Amino acid sequence: MATAPDLEDRSAVRATAPWPRNAWYVACTPDEIEGKPLGRKICGEPMVFFRGREGKVAALEDFCPHRGAPLSLGFVRDGALVCGYHGLAMGCHGKTEGMPGQRVGGFPPIRTYPVIERYGFIWVWPGDADAADPAKLRHLEWAEDEGWAYGGGLYHIQCDYRLMIDNLMDLTHETYVHSTSIGQKEIDEAPVKTRLVGERVVTSRFMDAIDPPPFWAMALRGAGLPDSGPVDRWQLCHFHLPSSVEIEVGVAPVGEGGYEAPLDRKAYSVVVDFMTPETEGSHWYFWGMARRFAVDDAELTTTIRDGQGRIFAEDMEMLERQQKNLDLYPDRRLLLLNIDAGGVRSRRLIEQAIAAEAN
Amino acid sequence: MATAPDLEDRSAVRATAPWPRNAWYVACTPDEIEGKPLGRKICGEPMVFFRGREGKVAALEDFCPHRGAPLSLGFVRDGALVCGYHGLAMGCHGKTEGMPGQRVGGFPPIRTYPVIERYGFIWVWPGDADAADPAKLRHLEWAEDEGWAYGGGLYHIQCDYRLMIDNLMDLTHETYVHSTSIGQKEIDEAPVKTRLVGERVVTSRFMDAIDPPPFWAMALRGAGLPDSGPVDRWQLCHFHLPSSVEIEVGVAPVGEGGYEAPLDRKAYSVVVDFMTPETEGSHWYFWGMARRFAVDDAELTTTIRDGQGRIFAEDMEMLERQQKNLDLYPDRRLLLLNIDAGGVRSRRLIEQAIAAEAN
Amino acid sequence: MATAPDLEDRSAVRATAPWPRNAWYVACTPDEIEGKPLGRKICGEPMVFFRGREGKVAALEDFCPHRGAPLSLGFVRDGALVCGYHGLAMGCHGKTEGMPGQRVGGFPPIRTYPVIERYGFIWVWPGDADAADPAKLRHLEWAEDEGWAYGGGLYHIQCDYRLMIDNLMDLTHETYVHSTSIGQKEIDEAPVKTRLVGERVVTSRFMDAIDPPPFWAMALRGAGLPDSGPVDRWQLCHFHLPSSVEIEVGVAPVGEGGYEAPLDRKAYSVVVDFMTPETEGSHWYFWGMARRFAVDDAELTTTIRDGQGRIFAEDMEMLERQQKNLDLYPDRRLLLLNIDAGGVRSRRLIEQAIAAEAN
Repeated sequence: MATAPDLEDRSAVRATAPWPRNAWYVACTPDEIEGKPLGRKICGEPMVFFRGREGKVAALEDFCPHRGAPLSLGFVRDGALVCGYHGLAMGCHGKTEGMPGQRVGGFPPIRTYPVIERYGFIWVWPGDADAADPAKLRHLEWAEDEGWAYGGGLYHIQCDYRLMIDNLMDLTHETYVHSTSIGQKEIDEAPVKTRLVGERVVTSRFMDAIDPPPFWAMALRGAGLPDSGPVDRWQLCHFHLPSSVEIEVGVAPVGEGGYEAPLDRKAYSVVVDFMTPETEGSHWYFWGMARRFAVDDAELTTTIRDGQGRIFAEDMEMLERQQKNLDLYPDRRLLLLNIDAGGVRSRRLIEQAIAAEAN
Repeated sequence: MATAPDLEDRSAVRATAPWPRNAWYVACTPDEIEGKPLGRKICGEPMVFFRGREGKVAALEDFCPHRGAPLSLGFVRDGALVCGYHGLAMGCHGKTEGMPGQRVGGFPPIRTYPVIERYGFIWVWPGDADAADPAKLRHLEWAEDEGWAYGGGLYHIQCDYRLMIDNLMDLTHETYVHSTSIGQKEIDEAPVKTRLVGERVVTSRFMDAIDPPPFWAMALRGAGLPDSGPVDRWQLCHFHLPSSVEIEVGVAPVGEGGYEAPLDRKAYSVVVDFMTPETEGSHWYFWGMARRFAVDDAELTTTIRDGQGRIFAEDMEMLERQQKNLDLYPDRRLLLLNIDAGGVRSRRLIEQAIAAEAN
Repeated sequence: MATAPDLEDRSAVRATAPWPRNAWYVACTPDEIEGKPLGRKICGEPMVFFRGREGKVAALEDFCPHRGAPLSLGFVRDGALVCGYHGLAMGCHGKTEGMPGQRVGGFPPIRTYPVIERYGFIWVWPGDADAADPAKLRHLEWAEDEGWAYGGGLYHIQCDYRLMIDNLMDLTHETYVHSTSIGQKEIDEAPVKTRLVGERVVTSRFMDAIDPPPFWAMALRGAGLPDSGPVDRWQLCHFHLPSSVEIEVGVAPVGEGGYEAPLDRKAYSVVVDFMTPETEGSHWYFWGMARRFAVDDAELTTTIRDGQGRIFAEDMEMLERQQKNLDLYPDRRLLLLNIDAGGVRSRRLIEQAIAAEAN
């Protein structure tokens, strides 16, 4: 059961820069820059993303050095980003490559951001370019191995990205926010365990011999397993810096070994969540699901993505209203219960990373 | 005729807290909390209203002590308000009654507001709970006596609630704002008299032997009286603290005694107006009409409410635009004419009540 | 070809009052005050325009001295502007002429603004009334001579009016912003020349023996000239204080003399642009085209106006996004290229006029 409630001073949590800058964040997906540039504010900075020469992705300040127009209103020509106002052609490295009737050698450069394309995402490093190292991007097994299928989407949410981390590191909310799809009272009733594993926070919960809720009954059918009888269900939430949560989720018919059951005797997935700060009060939420069953069933991928999209939209309303409420009571102390430990520890890692950057 | 114009310093009117806190305000109507909680900001404070055990209404801060979600997004179960995020069950008295997997004895209480249900409304006392006394709620005869019928509605208006008091205590605006329904030039031409009767401001106007305007012709037909010939018309506006205006209005065929005519020889009503501050620049406007004729005619109640709703929507646009204009000229002095005396004296009562609370 | 880039400190440009006050600005067109008053904020001041006695236009503060309602919500009666709230009748000279049941002699006057009607526009002088002289309104030949036809419109744009001046004094943007209508690469390639002619800035560009872009092919047909073969094209932008740009534009079949061709051998127009500041971040953009060909063809006037409206809407989006970007980077220095010289010199005239007023 539970712990005595602890209290948190939120005003202290609201430090100056509420995110690490020297880290890889998901900026966008490749389809968003197909044939045109994309303007997106990340960690407070307006950026433009586009494919330059040889299809290589570039990230620049979204600001034309000529008259300040957003470069994202322009177009890509011969690997350069052409401003849609007066035709200044900006190169991938932030130097003007040309402009009709002008000598551009003396034009001041604009800022570039280190960027890499990997695992089906474009990643950007908002901090010091010198420190940007592709090797610091964590390996995502589910994104490369053929034994997995992935589908996902993007929501723009008007709340502090850390509220989403809290949300994902404490799945008791499923019983209430998602009562018609993945929620069930057994989640509330099962004990939760939070621990630090290296630089990762892990919150786990196991529910044995329960009825599968509607979403998981659908998944069992998709995996070619019986969707009626009782199942063992598990949830293991993994927080990684700077701001992602991967949740191992699944069910297996009772007697197959639960979380440890053989791959073909369980419906096993990873819920993938990348929270990229936009401003202090908003973020880009890249969500998806990587699964290890029926990986060649493209129709199932669509079905799951649509279902997940509907479920995660339920979180969106709750979190945006929570944010507004917290803004009304900036000095109010919140409870820190055992179920909140995952979020609390994740925030502590974030704060340590921010503090380390400050030194 | 008139008086010499006097001048008012608006910047002085804009004191710190522009409403009394120790008073009963209309919070909502029973249908608004039927089967679900209602979140509503009143006097600057976000509150949630719901029916708890035995149908008794409760009012609480709209803030879950766990993670700050609005409790109004939740639902009522076994007389407690269950938070829609993680299932904390909040009792009517602001103490947590339970939460899955938690011992809640040490959870901090949240604020409750004294609340009573009477006269077809839920009333809330935003100030010191110790001072809240149901006996301080003024008796509303029209709400309990079977000789009356009532219909009304609610508008959310983006202006200081006192602009609505000014509006209702000076009905010369009917000639201009409501020219097609209840306005007529005789209103402007009739002298107006304002006096203080105990703790009530009364502004009265009598117009003899005039043609009934469209709304009143309709009412005369509803009352089974001739709608053509000349009528005597009256308007007596009564302001009561903290913020209501009741207006005795009606017409009687000439020769029946006017305001003093027997009940069955006049169309006599009370326009009911409760202005509940939301913020300094917005309020909840509960409007309605209580009538003493054809009280069993439910269809007439609907007809009158619809007509009144259309008329009062005309005020809404004018007052919201007036508010914006006053915001543009915060230091501008306004005129105080004889027709403004009702509003001026009502504001003075409000200021006295605020000052008395400060001591 | 080009010049070395120069740098501009935008923070210095953002002075306190970014427009001259003692000048005639276009306030509205006559159709906007037909039968009703018009409320419009100009140079930061809320004004109301209406036709008073004998059809004479008046401009007043949009503020009823009684209770602060916007006078523009009222109506005109017997040459006075009647407040729509309580019927105060305001005269053209800012003095209350009457009010039902009131002696108005002591009512405080409200501010009036010098106003004249000429050239198809209502012009207002927001500054010192004593300095307002109709003779200071520049003569507009195209507005009075029967040899011209005119059509135009109005856009409300959320950007500093000076960004529109920059836009109009550097037409290289046509190649990019208006690529499907009036843009063509030859604009970029032709040299541009900027000079000061008295108190006027002139930027000119001549493009010889080019293909006419779609808009001009249409105009050639309208003028009864061949729309296929090569043409000479010209653009002469004239900036006048306080805030207008007239652009002589046109094309003539090669061999006819270009800009100097006889009137019946060219399609010759003046693009008319009046930018009236609303706030520091928004303006009223009165645009139109005066032409010297096919002046009796009313259908052509409509065709041209519709086409111009579509083209100028393209600028609107670019400029509003540019403004947002500049607001994000308030201290960023912009480039000043040769093509920007027209805007730079125009801004300098504006700054000199503002400085002269300050002394």
